[in-house]
Amino acid sequence: MNIREYLEQKREAVDRFLESVIPNAKTQPTTLHESIRYSLFAGGKRVRPILAIAAAEAIGPLSPATLPIASSLELIHTYSLIIDDLPAMDNDDYRRGKLTNHKVYGEALAILAGDALLTLAFELCSRRDLVDGLAPARQVQLIYELAVGSGNLGMVGGQVLDIQAENKDIDLVTLQNIHKHKTGMLIRAAVRMGAIVADARPEQLDRLTGYAEDIGLAFQIADDVLNVTGTREELGKNANTDAQRGKKTYPTFYGVDGAKALADQVRDRAMAHLDGFGPSAAPLRELARYITARKN
Amino acid sequence: MNIREYLEQKREAVDRFLESVIPNAKTQPTTLHESIRYSLFAGGKRVRPILAIAAAEAIGPLSPATLPIASSLELIHTYSLIIDDLPAMDNDDYRRGKLTNHKVYGEALAILAGDALLTLAFELCSRRDLVDGLAPARQVQLIYELAVGSGNLGMVGGQVLDIQAENKDIDLVTLQNIHKHKTGMLIRAAVRMGAIVADARPEQLDRLTGYAEDIGLAFQIADDVLNVTGTREELGKNANTDAQRGKKTYPTFYGVDGAKALADQVRDRAMAHLDGFGPSAAPLRELARYITARKN
Repeated sequence: MNIREYLEQKREAVDRFLESVIPNAKTQPTTLHESIRYSLFAGGKRVRPILAIAAAEAIGPLSPATLPIASSLELIHTYSLIIDDLPAMDNDDYRRGKLTNHKVYGEALAILAGDALLTLAFELCSRRDLVDGLAPARQVQLIYELAVGSGNLGMVGGQVLDIQAENKDIDLVTLQNIHKHKTGMLIRAAVRMGAIVADARPEQLDRLTGYAEDIGLAFQIADDVLNVTGTREELGKNANTDAQRGKKTYPTFYGVDGAKALADQVRDRAMAHLDGFGPSAAPLRELARYITARKN
Repeated sequence: MNIREYLEQKREAVDRFLESVIPNAKTQPTTLHESIRYSLFAGGKRVRPILAIAAAEAIGPLSPATLPIASSLELIHTYSLIIDDLPAMDNDDYRRGKLTNHKVYGEALAILAGDALLTLAFELCSRRDLVDGLAPARQVQLIYELAVGSGNLGMVGGQVLDIQAENKDIDLVTLQNIHKHKTGMLIRAAVRMGAIVADARPEQLDRLTGYAEDIGLAFQIADDVLNVTGTREELGKNANTDAQRGKKTYPTFYGVDGAKALADQVRDRAMAHLDGFGPSAAPLRELARYITARKN
């Protein structure tokens, strides 16, 4: 399979779906919807929705519910980026080559756009008109997965751990714990939600959860490496910001080459979880490769 | 019935439930859970959960799902207060007689505590272990109601309208639109969720929705009056802040006495929606009276 084509097709499907389901910028309050759309349609790669779709494909034929459920993950991811960039957090001016949300709309609107996106994710997951054939009990389970992955013991918890570690001499175990929550839990939720929407059997769900945990880690290590080796043009934001902020990352502990080797090793471990799956898991395998080899 | 006793009993039930279900302050990340608990257990009156419970009682006997579903509304309400108080918003130092969340924990933690509370509300509503006997299709419907009431076309949308109206010479229609969303939609969701969890018939749900919309309005008018007539001690926060901020309120348009009379009139209209209900709606009737007569 051609992973670039696959990514492009799925990204377009997610974008088209989000475009159709998110209120347009003429909807009152217009500034809120403008601000939401500014960040949501800023060229995101839609990695989390695509992981969910690929996980569903690994289990069986796609159902109408797959795209709405998968797309809800991008609403959560976008809200987390808006919040991350705020003056009270990382205080970033650029994201994906564009001014950050609060630089354009102000802090108050940015915070509220984040809250609205977070809430829209749950609204989308609880709509019945978009999920033909999905059992309500499954739908409740999907909403629960999304909440756990993004909340106090998931992504938000990781964000808090990250803030607390700033300018501190943290060890490797602490670093792993931050990432396990800050990026890992939502990636885990993405893969699990894709599997659940496709009615995965418990042992399939377990294997895909193992896969998700490993690619979450590989993703983060690759991200830390990119922060050191990437250029401003490649990243669409300032490069080498971690070091400037005195932030400990995988390259701090392993060096750039060591961190690259570790990412490859964790990627191979992720692949091993897919051994019981046939060709339907090809997209998940290619995604694992893509995640550790990407340039932005 | 004695409304004071009723309010006290229900408030205690909600508090006990929230205490049992929200992670304690020793749970990692501890600062996040401390910050969540600081605002959640700051002496809130639990008006929204109590409205949900009273609406459920108006329909029939309470089910185990009532308390969890009702309590989720307080998580949303608390998050909205934390966000409202932020420097980028109202920049308030006190709330319910205590320092606001960001004054104690800093802005970053306050924002993340807000996000965590919002997410916890959906986590709570999607747990199956707490809602014995609740049909999954009903549970999905409840989650949808909560999302719509609190999101971009509900509470968050109202918050945006409110910010945009600051220092502007708004008319009465704009004022009504702000409040309809900022406070009205969550109160509406509260009453509707209580009715839905009790399996209300469509015409019962319609009547209770009418009741909810009217008491939401009465609540806001009473709130505006209190801001003028209340003391700092009664309110637990600074008094007469609206006028100091040049904010238009119901007393601006009607005078204090006119606004009081209007609140009573809207309260009576709320009561009329309950005409088809028997003694089981007594708590809803008393709540309408309480809301317009309260001192804080």
